[in-house]
Amino acid sequence: MPSDSTTPELQPITEIAAKLGLTEADLVPYGRTKAKVRLNVLEKHPPKGKLILVSAITPTAAGEGKTTTTIGLGQGLAKLGQRVCLALREPSLGPCLGMKGGATGGGQSQVHPADEINLHFTGDFHAVTAANNLLSALLDNRIYHEGMSRIDPRRIQWRRVMDMNDRALRNIVLGLGGVLQGVPREGGFDITAASEIMAILCLAGNFGDLKKRLARILVAFTHNDEPVTADSLNATGAMTALLKDALMPNLVQSTEGVPAFIHGGPFANIAHGCNSVIATKMAMGLADWAVTEAGFGFDLGAEKFFDIKCVSAGLDTAAVVLVATCRALKMHGGAQKGELTSPDPERLAKGLVNLDRHVENIKRFREPPIVCLNRFDTDTDAEIQIVREHCENKLKVPFAVSDHFAKGGDGAVELARTVMEHAEKVPDPFHPLYDWAEDIPTKIWKVANGMYGAEKIEYSKKAERDLKSLEKWGYDNLPVCIAKTQSSLSDDPKLYGRPLGFTVTVREILLSAGAGFVIPVTGEIMRMPGLPKNPQAEHIDVVDGHIEGIK
Amino acid sequence: MPSDSTTPELQPITEIAAKLGLTEADLVPYGRTKAKVRLNVLEKHPPKGKLILVSAITPTAAGEGKTTTTIGLGQGLAKLGQRVCLALREPSLGPCLGMKGGATGGGQSQVHPADEINLHFTGDFHAVTAANNLLSALLDNRIYHEGMSRIDPRRIQWRRVMDMNDRALRNIVLGLGGVLQGVPREGGFDITAASEIMAILCLAGNFGDLKKRLARILVAFTHNDEPVTADSLNATGAMTALLKDALMPNLVQSTEGVPAFIHGGPFANIAHGCNSVIATKMAMGLADWAVTEAGFGFDLGAEKFFDIKCVSAGLDTAAVVLVATCRALKMHGGAQKGELTSPDPERLAKGLVNLDRHVENIKRFREPPIVCLNRFDTDTDAEIQIVREHCENKLKVPFAVSDHFAKGGDGAVELARTVMEHAEKVPDPFHPLYDWAEDIPTKIWKVANGMYGAEKIEYSKKAERDLKSLEKWGYDNLPVCIAKTQSSLSDDPKLYGRPLGFTVTVREILLSAGAGFVIPVTGEIMRMPGLPKNPQAEHIDVVDGHIEGIK
Repeated sequence: MPSDSTTPELQPITEIAAKLGLTEADLVPYGRTKAKVRLNVLEKHPPKGKLILVSAITPTAAGEGKTTTTIGLGQGLAKLGQRVCLALREPSLGPCLGMKGGATGGGQSQVHPADEINLHFTGDFHAVTAANNLLSALLDNRIYHEGMSRIDPRRIQWRRVMDMNDRALRNIVLGLGGVLQGVPREGGFDITAASEIMAILCLAGNFGDLKKRLARILVAFTHNDEPVTADSLNATGAMTALLKDALMPNLVQSTEGVPAFIHGGPFANIAHGCNSVIATKMAMGLADWAVTEAGFGFDLGAEKFFDIKCVSAGLDTAAVVLVATCRALKMHGGAQKGELTSPDPERLAKGLVNLDRHVENIKRFREPPIVCLNRFDTDTDAEIQIVREHCENKLKVPFAVSDHFAKGGDGAVELARTVMEHAEKVPDPFHPLYDWAEDIPTKIWKVANGMYGAEKIEYSKKAERDLKSLEKWGYDNLPVCIAKTQSSLSDDPKLYGRPLGFTVTVREILLSAGAGFVIPVTGEIMRMPGLPKNPQAEHIDVVDGHIEGIK
Repeated sequence: MPSDSTTPELQPITEIAAKLGLTEADLVPYGRTKAKVRLNVLEKHPPKGKLILVSAITPTAAGEGKTTTTIGLGQGLAKLGQRVCLALREPSLGPCLGMKGGATGGGQSQVHPADEINLHFTGDFHAVTAANNLLSALLDNRIYHEGMSRIDPRRIQWRRVMDMNDRALRNIVLGLGGVLQGVPREGGFDITAASEIMAILCLAGNFGDLKKRLARILVAFTHNDEPVTADSLNATGAMTALLKDALMPNLVQSTEGVPAFIHGGPFANIAHGCNSVIATKMAMGLADWAVTEAGFGFDLGAEKFFDIKCVSAGLDTAAVVLVATCRALKMHGGAQKGELTSPDPERLAKGLVNLDRHVENIKRFREPPIVCLNRFDTDTDAEIQIVREHCENKLKVPFAVSDHFAKGGDGAVELARTVMEHAEKVPDPFHPLYDWAEDIPTKIWKVANGMYGAEKIEYSKKAERDLKSLEKWGYDNLPVCIAKTQSSLSDDPKLYGRPLGFTVTVREILLSAGAGFVIPVTGEIMRMPGLPKNPQAEHIDVVDGHIEGIK
């Protein structure tokens, strides 16, 4: 999302914390406007506020402003006198230096200090990188000192990570240089957001849970086909020590001073794509409204939010806001990339089928859907009216236009009112799509059919072998975190709108034993992005002590 | 150095800062007991205090307690009512998880919070890692998008770094996987302390200087033998942005509440091995006594401290404390590793020749030497008396025994009194060993002969070619940062005592154009340590919220 580079006059973080009833003793300050919040706050303030999830229809490449809408809704609720707290993901440094720019919202709905959040922030990503790579170093060190007799260097599952878009590190041969330098083998780096440790950090409910999950990470196999875990490499304690501070959620403020936890940033395809359980729970414990988001479209991010994060952590939402934009609807109606900002009511109307499917999907979880049209300045009133009438008259779901990018909380008051009116008054638990105890193919079917609309699942030979191994090792009771393109409801990124009658192909099934899910892979997944020809990093500078060029 | 794992009751960092006349507005807090200090403090408080350098005789593998002595001396001066500030290096995470353990002093002379300083601290090492690896990513990205027609992938000088002891990354082949994944080439990782960016951070006098040095880093050559700089890759601004906070020095406290800047940690062989210029200057600006250290023995670390850091930054010392231990003297007298803690006055007396040479070396810089015997509990009074008599009667240099490890500042009062008595009353500038404008072989000779006692220098064919290239590109007016073993005055790590009549062989000459020195390499230099068979990381844990096992 584009954002202006001017930072508003920020309030001291102690004042933001005071809005949540927190005192200085609850905080670990990082400068004047950022703080980590101590974990014992969770015990003093158990979750009780209403949780609102912001998700989106199938997005364009530029995204539909989910983060901006989440922040805008929070500010809108605050305008209406509500006690509200945001819970968002941390941006990754790599994409920020690459093409995408920062991820702190935009316009009058941002989190601040944006530049610091986009760069090192409080060091959580660096801590995840260090813990991940310590495990790699301990593993290769074990192979080096033991010889290759036990661990099979060809069956190492654990990759190193770096918080950088660095395509040259995707596939490497390491351990070269002779007997004193290691054991040659194939390997590679993923971006830090794709580290299983990031997913673990985000799913851990407390210190003990963090340690338990780190211990059970599967890193390799022996020549006898026995799994090698992080714990068997004596890596658990040191990894936990490296993550000790990272487990505390980070408190910052929005453009209008709404408290915001920004904590954890896992991928939404090979991981579950939402901020930490601890941040979400803390937001619910400290405010009457906790507003959060889940990565990409509802089918991808929100499904994982419910079936993995909420089931695992015992969370429940009071309503789901589905963000739609005119440009994405036009794309789903057949408009090409260059045409998305031109008025085109016909294609927009045609594209509403995508919205329909996502609304149905929200209802499959038996949660109240609220459609939010995130207004762009190229939208016409006629276009917006089409979406409103479709939602109110045909779908019969609550609808609001929001103009939080341009107007901040004032622009989101309609949305905030709609949310307050339609959120569950009495908690009514969501219904997960599947039971974790079901077998893996059943779980995959329930998601692919129930969410994506697939009519058939095919498994590659590799995926079939993976299934057998997962059953053999007792991992078949884990939830499924399906890696699928974010550009379509189907597994084909070119199928816009509401694809029908398609088959989803499972190519392989990966395991994140520590995070606690299996990953059926249905397409190319990019775990280490590359830099574009003209990377954003080449335009960043420090001028008069201020960072410029982070979009 | 071993340290107890108990942390004393720490004072709020604001109170420590107040001892230096700093207010909250001067600080960027990182928790309650760590803070970065804003750079404008330098302008308000120009250097005026006396600078004391702590160095050592040729050390054993375990080190002779230079850091502990530096902290002890600071505490001793404070006991005598002096206004004092320490300036020390930041520990590297890699060795802390490997064999060496932490680097925050020991016993009653430590800097705190030790565990946090040893792990992520305020993120400076992570920032250096990110800036270093961004440059790599931009370089490989350029090669990828331009094709291989311009930059020669076989002549890339810039390596990636990681703050981890990871031997498997020393030599790698990267860019594998076909046309979409990059351009295959040889490469590798160094540990972050060996990054030229760490040296740059430590030599930069201010933001502008940092930027200038980053811009001129030499990363590769074109097929036409033209140098490719960081600036030509448009990397300068983004690297500066990543290092923006890291340039501010970190303030913590010693066991007895003495203020301590801990900032920057470059290697002492391929770099200059001392904390940042900014931290040293700030300590001198805020206190009457600034106590600092330089890596390894005087010949290696202190020579670079004077000829590179002090010349570059316009610094000068008031005295040099040379740390000796009975065990190191016994080693230089011929005792074997297992014999160093047994009484052995004869070998100890024989080993004093090493001490003699270092005292002469201090005098070559025309600075007042003070010998400090860092007391260990295995030392006998008879042994200590031999050293005292040798220093006072034969060398006629001030001598003090210090027991700061066991007794803190009280144990260092004799040392502190001796320093106060013998430090220059009126500033008397040191004399560098050479003039930067001299040619490289002359500079190498003046260090190798003047410091190490070499009688001859030999150059390999490679080194001769390197000399020609450096002259061709105009880098011959840079100071020489000689990479040599720390275990001997000579370039042969097995020659203890005071080697005579030896030849130093220059194998190659590297360039750190950004940091601003050339590196004549005289032996194997380890830029990426490996983990031992039983790494310290396997013994680290978090118990009841406290980190255990970081020695």
